[in-house]
Amino acid sequence: MKLSVRSELFYAFENPTDAIVSVQAAWSPDQLVLAEWLTIEPFHTLVQDPTDQRGERRFRARLQGEVRIIYEAVVDNYERPALTSDLCIRDLIDLPADTLQYTTPSRYCPSDLFGRFAQREFGGLQGGAQIQTVLDWIYRNLDYAHGVSNVQTTAHETFTDRAGVCRDFTHMGITLCRALGVPARAVSAYALNLEPPDFHAVFEVYLGDGWYMVDATRLADPKTLVRIGVGRDAADIAFLSTNGPCELLDQRVSVMLASDL
Amino acid sequence: MKLSVRSELFYAFENPTDAIVSVQAAWSPDQLVLAEWLTIEPFHTLVQDPTDQRGERRFRARLQGEVRIIYEAVVDNYERPALTSDLCIRDLIDLPADTLQYTTPSRYCPSDLFGRFAQREFGGLQGGAQIQTVLDWIYRNLDYAHGVSNVQTTAHETFTDRAGVCRDFTHMGITLCRALGVPARAVSAYALNLEPPDFHAVFEVYLGDGWYMVDATRLADPKTLVRIGVGRDAADIAFLSTNGPCELLDQRVSVMLASDL
Amino acid sequence: MKLSVRSELFYAFENPTDAIVSVQAAWSPDQLVLAEWLTIEPFHTLVQDPTDQRGERRFRARLQGEVRIIYEAVVDNYERPALTSDLCIRDLIDLPADTLQYTTPSRYCPSDLFGRFAQREFGGLQGGAQIQTVLDWIYRNLDYAHGVSNVQTTAHETFTDRAGVCRDFTHMGITLCRALGVPARAVSAYALNLEPPDFHAVFEVYLGDGWYMVDATRLADPKTLVRIGVGRDAADIAFLSTNGPCELLDQRVSVMLASDL
Amino acid sequence: MKLSVRSELFYAFENPTDAIVSVQAAWSPDQLVLAEWLTIEPFHTLVQDPTDQRGERRFRARLQGEVRIIYEAVVDNYERPALTSDLCIRDLIDLPADTLQYTTPSRYCPSDLFGRFAQREFGGLQGGAQIQTVLDWIYRNLDYAHGVSNVQTTAHETFTDRAGVCRDFTHMGITLCRALGVPARAVSAYALNLEPPDFHAVFEVYLGDGWYMVDATRLADPKTLVRIGVGRDAADIAFLSTNGPCELLDQRVSVMLASDL
Repeated sequence: MKLSVRSELFYAFENPTDAIVSVQAAWSPDQLVLAEWLTIEPFHTLVQDPTDQRGERRFRARLQGEVRIIYEAVVDNYERPALTSDLCIRDLIDLPADTLQYTTPSRYCPSDLFGRFAQREFGGLQGGAQIQTVLDWIYRNLDYAHGVSNVQTTAHETFTDRAGVCRDFTHMGITLCRALGVPARAVSAYALNLEPPDFHAVFEVYLGDGWYMVDATRLADPKTLVRIGVGRDAADIAFLSTNGPCELLDQRVSVMLASDL
Repeated sequence: MKLSVRSELFYAFENPTDAIVSVQAAWSPDQLVLAEWLTIEPFHTLVQDPTDQRGERRFRARLQGEVRIIYEAVVDNYERPALTSDLCIRDLIDLPADTLQYTTPSRYCPSDLFGRFAQREFGGLQGGAQIQTVLDWIYRNLDYAHGVSNVQTTAHETFTDRAGVCRDFTHMGITLCRALGVPARAVSAYALNLEPPDFHAVFEVYLGDGWYMVDATRLADPKTLVRIGVGRDAADIAFLSTNGPCELLDQRVSVMLASDL
Repeated sequence: MKLSVRSELFYAFENPTDAIVSVQAAWSPDQLVLAEWLTIEPFHTLVQDPTDQRGERRFRARLQGEVRIIYEAVVDNYERPALTSDLCIRDLIDLPADTLQYTTPSRYCPSDLFGRFAQREFGGLQGGAQIQTVLDWIYRNLDYAHGVSNVQTTAHETFTDRAGVCRDFTHMGITLCRALGVPARAVSAYALNLEPPDFHAVFEVYLGDGWYMVDATRLADPKTLVRIGVGRDAADIAFLSTNGPCELLDQRVSVMLASDL
Repeated sequence: MKLSVRSELFYAFENPTDAIVSVQAAWSPDQLVLAEWLTIEPFHTLVQDPTDQRGERRFRARLQGEVRIIYEAVVDNYERPALTSDLCIRDLIDLPADTLQYTTPSRYCPSDLFGRFAQREFGGLQGGAQIQTVLDWIYRNLDYAHGVSNVQTTAHETFTDRAGVCRDFTHMGITLCRALGVPARAVSAYALNLEPPDFHAVFEVYLGDGWYMVDATRLADPKTLVRIGVGRDAADIAFLSTNGPCELLDQRVSVMLASDL
């Protein structure tokens, strides 16, 4: 599917502030960036970090004053394979080495606390069917709601709160999958038809021989997602990280089918 | 310094259990493994994971019954540079890309919670002197004590508890350094003269142009440490991780000056 | 039912230590203490606190050295009324004033965190039937297990851990009831046929015009319980609280049908 | 000191909602209500709860629609005794029985977690001087700031956050006092010269033979406080508690010297 994505960040920095910006579509094997434009107004020198094996692209800059960062791209996200019930869960010994870092707990995904719950609730199931049941459980048991969580909320709290936004649904999903021994990682993305339009947080699980992208909120179809960043949890995939305070002036995200252009 | 290290893990696994074992001295630029022997009794097939750029070496195996894993090595750990007060803290924009992952919070190091405390307590200081003051603060304010913490304890809890073991001191140090914007990462190590002998947890901070290893407990001199694994926190550097229960039968660690042999 | 209860606490206090001891059967309207003996060896001066309206009796003493406290009583606990599905839940405005303190969250029962879960899971039910369903839910979803929780564990943690001992089952129950607007309070008790014999923690909910005692662990029949203390949670009903360290030497509890004597 | 206090709560209740309202000046021995007026518009039937020994007065009502509650009073708060350094801390065995409930941890004051810190930081001091040092510590180490805490924030979090509002300062103070074995309880109050005017949260510690009121924020002088409610922590002294949602339309508090009228 060819998608046209656009994000515009408009922030004010009173003092010179170092920022890491992660808004560019990934150069990952599962999608092709056909064209892209990155504009930063006024001009700032950028440090483009090397693209790692996961294809993530981030740049750093020292920003000051009112800064507008506009990113546009046309991306072919190919045909993302759907997670199916018959996919197998790899034993720990059979996992690729680079998936192991996604089996351990992270800041917002304390999977070490959920071993018993995960076994009690999902232990009788196997493979992709087990993960599908996790996703169903999350959808049935969490309300999508603003104002319940904040940037420090972990899946431990969401599990009790029973509500949150895409970030929290994603953390809950990652946490339960890791508690079941399945590698799971957070993905930031552009999503078609997300209402209201915004950056989206979804996650991927490693089944069979690859990563399968899922959206625990069911607000977006994985087939329509354009990957930006990948990490252990939200701590790794923020679209904007700074080493000092900044003020949001405006922020807009839009995604369209490229054929609609 | 040439050190002779030895660890012996003796565990019982009732059922076939997949394990990740991280006891081998790292093949990192800051030390040279002169000789080593790895023995597993009875024989089990090992999957030796590829050594990454940090030099960490881990193997995986499916273990059953009573298993004894013995690792011995002679390692030259060269001359580890000491952290000095005049080393500079790099701005976020100037850090090597591969250090950025050690600036964000992790499972046991919720540095996002400590921004205000870190600024209030250490904000007036610069560079290596700031980190030295963090280390002094930890040493003055935490008791080394068993029985206060467990494997789920985070630095948020240790900060209130004011006590813990090497794992907790390390998490406290990493957390405060990251809260100050300084990359910090956990290191598992063999340590000379540790009483009682055991695997040790220390950490590294990125200052100037390199990583500096420090021991917040002051139980070991960094010059006498042999690096095993590196990661964000204890979730990444366990010497033994399994996907099922196991029983500790015996465990011994010893470290000697090689010239003493 | 006439029950003969006995507890023996044998502790060592290195330094003079102030203790609050709560082992005496309550002088509450729902039970009658027919006979009792309190022995403390060696002799220590006791401060017997006044019995409050709930009937709780506690004494204080400054203890030193090896101290043995033996309490024996014969108690008629009458016929405790069973919680039935048709009992009504009182509106906040109709509750007796002295039950209101048991509607708010306490140290180990953070009911303010569970509003959404309680409504989602139990909101469709009414009256005693709602509370019975809470009890069923706890019994189905928690494992009775030692070693998972400790004296600092709250219901927030037990909800994720899915395991604990009588203290944790009680806290989980109190928390969910309060989250539903039902007064709930912790009760320490002697229980017939508890295996192994020990002090027991249960709770009471206010329905209709009275308090109904329930045991979320189902290890004891409320009809066989002898009430000791009442409070908001375990922080209020410890059988022994001290202002300094002490060493447990031995502790025994026994309960028998008085007719068996 | 004669003070004229006034509060006006203006809330909207979509559905009939039971509320507990705690805005009336306490009928406690340390102050005298010279005159008072309570108005509720439109008319609602009130249930005035009995005044307990602490003098707290609360009423309950079933509210619907837009409701305005206006309370006015002229109160002589006498001369509150100041906490002085030479007051003694009572041993556990010597405390009045009704102070004991304020020595145990509560929802927002988990004093059981702070034993080691309290001893390390304040253990060398005695009596009132110890409590004064606790107050100094809080004032030096916490920032008064909005937006850091919320209604679920405990002293465990404030201790790390190092910021909060009067509620958080009060919880931090209560927690540290209880950790030192000193009874401490939360007090809601009207305060002269509070900017901006609002209900205030302070606390009391039991020293010598009585309760001493202190304001850890130093925003108000205890001599100018009019006591409303008393409890273990904020869970007990909310000026408005409801069993359902409500919308704040307006809220005003004013306090003046009665001689200024």
